[in-house]
Amino acid sequence: MRGAEALVGSLVGAGVDVCFMNPGTSEMHFVQALDDVPEMRGVLTLFEGVATGAADAHARITGRPAAVLLHLGPGLGNGLANLHNARRAGTPLVCVVGAHATDHVRHDAPLESDITALARTVSGWVHTCGDVRDVADDAVRAVAAAAERGGRVATLVLPADVSWSEGGAPAPALPAAAPFPPAPSRVAIAAAAVRSGGAVILLGGPALTERAMDAAGRVAAATGARLLVETFPRCWDTGAGRPRADKLAYFAEQALEQLDGASSLVLAGARSPVSFFGYPGIPGDLVPDGATVVGLADAATDAEAALEALAVEVAPDAAAEPAPRDAPEPAPGPLDVRSLCAAVAATLPEDAIVIDESLTAAAVLAPALQTAAPHTQLALTGGAIGQGPPAAVGAAVAAPDRSVVAVQADGSALYTLQALWTQAREQLDVTTVLINNAAYAILRVELARTGVGEAAHSGRAGRMLTLTDPTPDFVSLATGYGVPARRVETTEDLLDALRWAHDEPGPHLIEAIVPAVG
Amino acid sequence: MRGAEALVGSLVGAGVDVCFMNPGTSEMHFVQALDDVPEMRGVLTLFEGVATGAADAHARITGRPAAVLLHLGPGLGNGLANLHNARRAGTPLVCVVGAHATDHVRHDAPLESDITALARTVSGWVHTCGDVRDVADDAVRAVAAAAERGGRVATLVLPADVSWSEGGAPAPALPAAAPFPPAPSRVAIAAAAVRSGGAVILLGGPALTERAMDAAGRVAAATGARLLVETFPRCWDTGAGRPRADKLAYFAEQALEQLDGASSLVLAGARSPVSFFGYPGIPGDLVPDGATVVGLADAATDAEAALEALAVEVAPDAAAEPAPRDAPEPAPGPLDVRSLCAAVAATLPEDAIVIDESLTAAAVLAPALQTAAPHTQLALTGGAIGQGPPAAVGAAVAAPDRSVVAVQADGSALYTLQALWTQAREQLDVTTVLINNAAYAILRVELARTGVGEAAHSGRAGRMLTLTDPTPDFVSLATGYGVPARRVETTEDLLDALRWAHDEPGPHLIEAIVPAVG
Repeated sequence: MRGAEALVGSLVGAGVDVCFMNPGTSEMHFVQALDDVPEMRGVLTLFEGVATGAADAHARITGRPAAVLLHLGPGLGNGLANLHNARRAGTPLVCVVGAHATDHVRHDAPLESDITALARTVSGWVHTCGDVRDVADDAVRAVAAAAERGGRVATLVLPADVSWSEGGAPAPALPAAAPFPPAPSRVAIAAAAVRSGGAVILLGGPALTERAMDAAGRVAAATGARLLVETFPRCWDTGAGRPRADKLAYFAEQALEQLDGASSLVLAGARSPVSFFGYPGIPGDLVPDGATVVGLADAATDAEAALEALAVEVAPDAAAEPAPRDAPEPAPGPLDVRSLCAAVAATLPEDAIVIDESLTAAAVLAPALQTAAPHTQLALTGGAIGQGPPAAVGAAVAAPDRSVVAVQADGSALYTLQALWTQAREQLDVTTVLINNAAYAILRVELARTGVGEAAHSGRAGRMLTLTDPTPDFVSLATGYGVPARRVETTEDLLDALRWAHDEPGPHLIEAIVPAVG
Repeated sequence: MRGAEALVGSLVGAGVDVCFMNPGTSEMHFVQALDDVPEMRGVLTLFEGVATGAADAHARITGRPAAVLLHLGPGLGNGLANLHNARRAGTPLVCVVGAHATDHVRHDAPLESDITALARTVSGWVHTCGDVRDVADDAVRAVAAAAERGGRVATLVLPADVSWSEGGAPAPALPAAAPFPPAPSRVAIAAAAVRSGGAVILLGGPALTERAMDAAGRVAAATGARLLVETFPRCWDTGAGRPRADKLAYFAEQALEQLDGASSLVLAGARSPVSFFGYPGIPGDLVPDGATVVGLADAATDAEAALEALAVEVAPDAAAEPAPRDAPEPAPGPLDVRSLCAAVAATLPEDAIVIDESLTAAAVLAPALQTAAPHTQLALTGGAIGQGPPAAVGAAVAAPDRSVVAVQADGSALYTLQALWTQAREQLDVTTVLINNAAYAILRVELARTGVGEAAHSGRAGRMLTLTDPTPDFVSLATGYGVPARRVETTEDLLDALRWAHDEPGPHLIEAIVPAVG
């Protein structure tokens, strides 16, 4: 058996049965192995950033490692931004990077580069396969490594000769790493903190599942602790029927206001809060003066068990207070961010997956979704834009029986819009609501915040932040990739289009024209 | 003066007056400085790979360093593939990567990553700016470093606080590095080699200018030495009136045939030839058995002077034999690769710049262009696809009085198609001839070569190499980015469309439907 077939077979045996890919010459035998191992589903993307973003979301939804296949250093480079997001999400991801044949490396051929150096910047585990007899073991080790410490990127560099050589044999899966059980001492400290009043429980990472949210909700109901969710949640079960929790604001000043007065911060799956960017005169560390930080569960700990242990301790008889189902009617007339978010909330399908790369609209979207149909939210964990369209692909492949709704900023969408083609090819049930404000609106806000003056909006500098001259036409772009699309400018038309998109199978894009912020 | 203004002013003083950019929050002061330093032209792109590919081509055409502005590690990651191409081209390029404020790094905020590790994989020089008082000196050092050793990527990491702090002052440019003069001993050895007969002169890198080609042509005329050009030339002055030279074939077997019987290989700006990929049973080193390799001039040497010295030595009275102007009439009827390339050649504007990312069509395009109007060809030096549309941007910005014709494969175009938007915004005179064969045709050829069987064309594996279901509609895509476009299926319509594109100002895209190879 060729190495490639042994590798693919071993991945399948270890539970990795989807591979998002952008293969090249050095990966031809891996591709060929798809014919020999029909249990592995290959999903072709038009750009590596789509493959890596899809794998990230796939793993977030399934909880199992996902795989990507990339082509040498440049292919890995193209996929790096969404691997960065995966790293920040703590996603288990097996990244197979095809490389030159072992014997060819010394020729320093044009595509040669330092793949492992690149891989190390996003991976928790990197290994180069040295022999066809090891490739199956290396594959199952990669899957196991990806699941360690709560989830990380495991990169397996695969020389072409290891793929093409005979002598491979599938290896049995290794036992899956279980998260660490919660530490009783930490539960006790957290219990004391929430009992003493004024506590904020900051939920993140693995502590955003329905079970974890319910436990946190019981603690909140019994002790008055406030629940906050990290700004960019990895995978958050929320909506009506689940406990209310605000997101920590993106801008430091607003986050500081939210945290003001907290006597303690209990971290459940979340890291201690820091400002997204540094600004002159604003603290980077957002923990309020005098507040105690209590690490209940980090990303490698069983956060659900930790929150349940805390609930047993401080709220044995309490029930979480569920958010009501009460999506308000969106205001009719010309669209703005508020009516757009309300329309998305009002029409949200039951148990949908919401991909939130709405950026400037996020602060409006989150409260609107709080009382919408129960759903799961995935966000831009690492801040590397261009995550939304690929994530919609991965989520839809992972959960074919759930609707995916992607609320998407325009500038970010243009990073990885090729994802629409894979949505069309795989006939994925994705509704993209594209917020076209013809600007890098978030940067306009940032430009104003840096105090460099209003003039920048119109001058040579301002031109670097607008998406006009010409304004991209997302209906044409989506059509070009095979996704049916409509442009809307009013709430009424948006509601119509949402119903059309939700009712008809397959992907759709709705280009919503809204005024630019700032 | 803020650091950002001192930086931008110093770049301009050192001759770097265009910056292709994808700024984010940490680069806001650099953007603002565009209003203060009007000599710097900012060119916005929708994706970092467009910015880096454009800068690469800009520098190849002007011979001076070009600049890009990227946003932290993920932005650099997105730009990495075309920086890889720039590295392989020996392009002088100043890569400014905005980073978190110095004081913010310790918070390990979501966008934090190891920028320098990433940068080192493509850069010959990497430096992180430590203080606003040094930023101007660092900028001119970066420009000087970019021009060293024939040209390389110099990456300057720019913390946000260095940009925003007061206390900067522009620094005077450093003297530009001159290439090393040719070594007389090497000229003498090369002279002996070409005099003894059976020599092949392999031209590459800086040895493809009109002056260098003319000197090589004189040597060829006087000694019978054959001229070959490296497979992916960085910047090649060719066409009618210039000496004929074949390109070294992409596939090793064909290249070995071309080189068969050579008694010596004289390397002028080119590296010793190696196979692009390794294959079982095919040598990676393409130097024929028994042939002597003579290094006349490497990338850091003045290759024009070296070839002229060789011509003075062996061909004092010879004249180069110019290729005739004789673009054959393209065959009418349904398009194929041959009639497409003939139509491009027949209509090529005088002194055009041809961006060749035609991949499977390249072997047909090169001979067709040999007798077309004199022009300059830029190719995919590092094999990282998605270079064509960005390179067209950079070339057109560099040479506003020349027409740019991009002959572009479909799969590669889809990596960085966002470049069309910048072509529209800057109203660049770019004609893209998009070869739509609805496949990764080169990979089909490779799949057949790996001997994995014909079944792959139709099975699950084959589906990873086709661009069907749906076939991207490049007319819609181009329209979405603001570029007028037409679809053609016959030679007659292609000729019409080429005239339309060449006659009307601004960018155009022609989607040429051709049958897939293999």
